[in-house]
Amino acid sequence: MITTHPHASEKIHHPADRQRLLEEFKRWLPPASILAETEALRPYECDGLSVYRCLPWLVLLPETIEQIQQILRICYREGVPVVARGAGTGLAGGALPLDNGVLLGLAKLNRILEVDPRNRLARVQPGVRNISVSEAARPYGLFYAPDPSSQIACTMGGNVAENSGGVHCLKYGLTTHNVLEVKLVTMDGELLTLGGGGFDSPGLDLLAVTIGSEGLLGVAVEITVKLLPLPEETQVLLAAFDDVEKAGQAVAGIIAAGLLPAGLEMMDHTIIQAAEDFIGAGYPVEAEAVLIVEFDGMREQVGQDLERAAGLLKACGAYRLDIAAAPEDRQKAWAGRKAAFPAAGRISPDYYCMDGTIPRRFLADTLKKIAELSRQYGLTVANVFHAGDGNLHPLILYDAEKTGELDKAEQLGGAILALCVEVGGTITGEHGVGIEKMNHMCLQFSASELMQFHALKRAFDEKGLLNPGKAIPSLHRCAEWGAMHVHQGNVRLPEIERF
Amino acid sequence: MITTHPHASEKIHHPADRQRLLEEFKRWLPPASILAETEALRPYECDGLSVYRCLPWLVLLPETIEQIQQILRICYREGVPVVARGAGTGLAGGALPLDNGVLLGLAKLNRILEVDPRNRLARVQPGVRNISVSEAARPYGLFYAPDPSSQIACTMGGNVAENSGGVHCLKYGLTTHNVLEVKLVTMDGELLTLGGGGFDSPGLDLLAVTIGSEGLLGVAVEITVKLLPLPEETQVLLAAFDDVEKAGQAVAGIIAAGLLPAGLEMMDHTIIQAAEDFIGAGYPVEAEAVLIVEFDGMREQVGQDLERAAGLLKACGAYRLDIAAAPEDRQKAWAGRKAAFPAAGRISPDYYCMDGTIPRRFLADTLKKIAELSRQYGLTVANVFHAGDGNLHPLILYDAEKTGELDKAEQLGGAILALCVEVGGTITGEHGVGIEKMNHMCLQFSASELMQFHALKRAFDEKGLLNPGKAIPSLHRCAEWGAMHVHQGNVRLPEIERF
Repeated sequence: MITTHPHASEKIHHPADRQRLLEEFKRWLPPASILAETEALRPYECDGLSVYRCLPWLVLLPETIEQIQQILRICYREGVPVVARGAGTGLAGGALPLDNGVLLGLAKLNRILEVDPRNRLARVQPGVRNISVSEAARPYGLFYAPDPSSQIACTMGGNVAENSGGVHCLKYGLTTHNVLEVKLVTMDGELLTLGGGGFDSPGLDLLAVTIGSEGLLGVAVEITVKLLPLPEETQVLLAAFDDVEKAGQAVAGIIAAGLLPAGLEMMDHTIIQAAEDFIGAGYPVEAEAVLIVEFDGMREQVGQDLERAAGLLKACGAYRLDIAAAPEDRQKAWAGRKAAFPAAGRISPDYYCMDGTIPRRFLADTLKKIAELSRQYGLTVANVFHAGDGNLHPLILYDAEKTGELDKAEQLGGAILALCVEVGGTITGEHGVGIEKMNHMCLQFSASELMQFHALKRAFDEKGLLNPGKAIPSLHRCAEWGAMHVHQGNVRLPEIERF
Repeated sequence: MITTHPHASEKIHHPADRQRLLEEFKRWLPPASILAETEALRPYECDGLSVYRCLPWLVLLPETIEQIQQILRICYREGVPVVARGAGTGLAGGALPLDNGVLLGLAKLNRILEVDPRNRLARVQPGVRNISVSEAARPYGLFYAPDPSSQIACTMGGNVAENSGGVHCLKYGLTTHNVLEVKLVTMDGELLTLGGGGFDSPGLDLLAVTIGSEGLLGVAVEITVKLLPLPEETQVLLAAFDDVEKAGQAVAGIIAAGLLPAGLEMMDHTIIQAAEDFIGAGYPVEAEAVLIVEFDGMREQVGQDLERAAGLLKACGAYRLDIAAAPEDRQKAWAGRKAAFPAAGRISPDYYCMDGTIPRRFLADTLKKIAELSRQYGLTVANVFHAGDGNLHPLILYDAEKTGELDKAEQLGGAILALCVEVGGTITGEHGVGIEKMNHMCLQFSASELMQFHALKRAFDEKGLLNPGKAIPSLHRCAEWGAMHVHQGNVRLPEIERF
């Protein structure tokens, strides 16, 4: 399905303006850094949320920070919107271009500038792939902790924009917990250094507010991250259950016991079967739920933790426990989990991946309600998720060729997210809002809170040119969608209309 | 020494205005919540940085969130500046009042609203003292990790404003790593919920930017914090060195070995002697440096860590090692460290406490340079600090009665902070900027970065009424002080002049 971005501005520059600007970019950039022909633009028309597509006016692929500053200065002067893009693996449409704007591709800034084992840090350019950081750190016995499923492809700049997590973030935190410093170019071309070497930084925490800001505040042009010592030992437990609720209780039990697994993932029957058919990971295909529990750290500690977890899992009703101690068994156990999304793609023509979070104590209950909604809408929902963080990834299986199924899938998705907000959770754990969850932001936040987001956005980008129409809905949009939490009867619209 | 706040605005309301406003406050607040007589105002004229004093126009002590909203709405309408205050233990003058403004005391909001052991969290009012949270959590085997030295007195609201740390923040993080949600009232009286139960929150990270914002963005009126399980075992090592540099290298060695002590503190000869005279902690008074190394966690792990640390300390030249295993010995070992500041007060009429941070690898070198500066200025500098985080607390000993010594102490302090910035550190680790380090902010940040801070401040408080003149210097001030990093020759002053 091809559609244009619902928020693309109607303002289109005159062809003569476009030509003049193109000539100006040519003075600052090498020819290979400018893509203007339709066929060259095509690969940039969408990110991982491919249901929305839009050809940008121009793709620019700068090679230096100075070129990025110059591009932004020109766009700022001319009022041209800019969307930054890493590898385009985002799942929420955050890198969807604008037809009257520049798509700023950061792929050419792909160097690891420094690995400093003594201070356990790495300094990288934004186009460096996530996995490359750990690869460069490995010879020193170190690694970079956040590991989103897309880590082979996704870039560090994109990780900063989305505050990426991964299967190990329960223990090691999100991107925001692992980044020490970001050099950021703002829309007017200024270069700011955010954060730094110290334990705490004076002034306001611009680093934290930038991480996860979905490209709305500036362009990350250099990133310094923490490296951690590779654990001495890693072991994985696979626990099979004949009931999803029991598995949910086991998750709560493990956390309540004070254990801190490096990863704690759950897969339901549909996913277990699909993954097993695809990868042959050795999962028990008859199980209603499987938990993958990984511990890492010092050898003796891991042994103790594993033993305690095994006891708790059995007490909660696990009917089968497998320990994957050898590295190849561990990899096999994880391979099925990491292939869960493509595996779902094999059993359904299309799927819609949700990303809600809930307080862990509502896990069993929420899964039951999702199953009810699934029956109600007549669409299968497969569940695979970061159980330890309460970050659900319900996959709604549908067929876009069947009239009305996409709409139905989106409605079901909305109902699932509403369920998450209802129990005190959020509409997105790690995939971001992008354009996909704009409406659901109206469920999550009050008018005052959305206005505060917009004010903060303006404090970095007063013309609203960076990734406009993403991540934060206007109050108008929320009012139209019918979910505005009007606060104290006081919704002041005019000021933020332009976003 | 009594002086007025150097940034108090000249704008003073007409007495009739003051009377009218006072009458309005009386309609909203109980009589005991309004202090207007000079003698009642006196206790609020300064915080822990008592060298600066200023009587506020009015002290208001609200009892509810609604009263706080009402006070801020009135002040917003009338353009009256507001300074919020917890216990007034801050060391940087962040709670110094304005003579034309309201001092908003939060002492009456002192209830622990909820301790939820199942989800390991506590919900508290801003006037609750830090230590009360751990006391309330203890029956459930839980505790609240950040533990500033002032924890018996300082409040959770103040901890949020200053992003407080403590001796255990090396392992457990600062306030920002331990707060889940803040309810914030902005200057116009809106109530926002920042953060929340989820692992990550959609939208911009308003919670992170609020923590450590020194009362510039809003008033925290309710705080939800993480609780952690009390460790099974805690042990403390005291290591004595005949040379400060060796102790510095031992700190680097412990961290490089991948050990994560719960606390890692250093004291130099002057402090060891002063603390020993004061408390009798059993410190080796002949030592040039003592390290206190604490490990906590599971029993076997602590034993292993302690053994490895002891080996490393000996290898780095520790001539004496004492293990404090019994709780009373541990308390004694820490008592000296916690009493270091009052102990310094016993050997010098006045002292000036610095709070710079440096990358750990420069520890030994920076201590040597501080000793040189101390000789150069003719003032003793005693060192006691969070060595594990590279957070220095040099105490400059001086006598304010001697003409010129305060000036000399401030100059020496400035030279020490400049040294910290030079090696890639910061001018404050945990005490905040307040009014004390306004000039040094000009060393730390470029004009563009300071302008970005001001823009962010305006996004929350466009009239600049909340704690004005604190934490972020104007570019004018930096230019006058002679340390402005003018960036690309481009300093745009007019817009931010009013701060």
